[in-house]
Amino acid sequence: MNKIITISREFGSGGRTIGRETAKKLNIPCYDQELIEKVQKESGFTKEYIDKNGENASTSILNSMFGTTFGRDIVWTSQCKVISRLAEEGPCVIVGRCADYVLREKAELLKVFIHASYEKRAERIVTLYGESDTAIEKRIKEKDKRRSAYYKYYTEIEYGDARNYDVALDSGKLGIEKCVEIITDLYKN
Amino acid sequence: MNKIITISREFGSGGRTIGRETAKKLNIPCYDQELIEKVQKESGFTKEYIDKNGENASTSILNSMFGTTFGRDIVWTSQCKVISRLAEEGPCVIVGRCADYVLREKAELLKVFIHASYEKRAERIVTLYGESDTAIEKRIKEKDKRRSAYYKYYTEIEYGDARNYDVALDSGKLGIEKCVEIITDLYKN
Repeated sequence: MNKIITISREFGSGGRTIGRETAKKLNIPCYDQELIEKVQKESGFTKEYIDKNGENASTSILNSMFGTTFGRDIVWTSQCKVISRLAEEGPCVIVGRCADYVLREKAELLKVFIHASYEKRAERIVTLYGESDTAIEKRIKEKDKRRSAYYKYYTEIEYGDARNYDVALDSGKLGIEKCVEIITDLYKN
Repeated sequence: MNKIITISREFGSGGRTIGRETAKKLNIPCYDQELIEKVQKESGFTKEYIDKNGENASTSILNSMFGTTFGRDIVWTSQCKVISRLAEEGPCVIVGRCADYVLREKAELLKVFIHASYEKRAERIVTLYGESDTAIEKRIKEKDKRRSAYYKYYTEIEYGDARNYDVALDSGKLGIEKCVEIITDLYKN
């Protein structure tokens, strides 16, 4: 079984950057957006369809008991297949997509959760993504809600519960660089 | 404000050992049982009274709306005072007792949560404390329940939620020594 780092992260916490930097240090690939693209290619879905039915699906869709869950389940199944195949190919970092759950019996995992205070995340989103700070609060709350609902729906695990991860870090408090250092060191040892 | 490490921990996760080893490395004091003794001396309570009304209070007492909460609130108030005084005295490690919450505005905190799988904890308790493994499962579950209820009652924070801590570590997976190393390094930097 390959050694895989899975990174769950709060929106705006820098989890994707941490994943990329860690992968670079370890000289292994990092999958995030690329993963979505692979899913798309493999399944013939459009990007819009995946966005609507994937991790960022609106909670009203997630809560629906009717027809709308169909698209989501197809995207989920396809996504599980891609993640499993990537994990078989070799050591890597996978950001998001419930990879920790999908690979729980298929790889040797280092399960990471990255979070940060609301203030630090808002700051990061405004600075890095150049978004206006007027609607930031609503956007962060909505994203948090969606990820949490999505995670719970498919994994039955409480999103953000420390006990689901080998290591959980506050990137706002510790800094991106220190997080990368800790994860890299844990992976090597 | 002094730099304080607070360690919340699951029963049997080795959190107390990690606290002590970290404190030794940093050459600062570590308070756990000693803290209880200080509370006792200061308040005139007996050890039995504190055991009954402190962190290990049974959940039936915690849920009670009547007279029995009285003893617990007195122990809590006294405990808060002792923790605050210790934090004023100088840098230290404090294990348990909701110190992260008590000191949230009174010290520069490094908030740590230590957890481990049920199996690893049972193994540790049987090996280190010499307890029989027949009643271990019930004991761990009961302790988890009590700590969680106690924490929530006084802090309104969800026990074990990664977002309440700067760093959360699985001591069963990473090992006691690695946890000490990470915390020591984070404290120094």
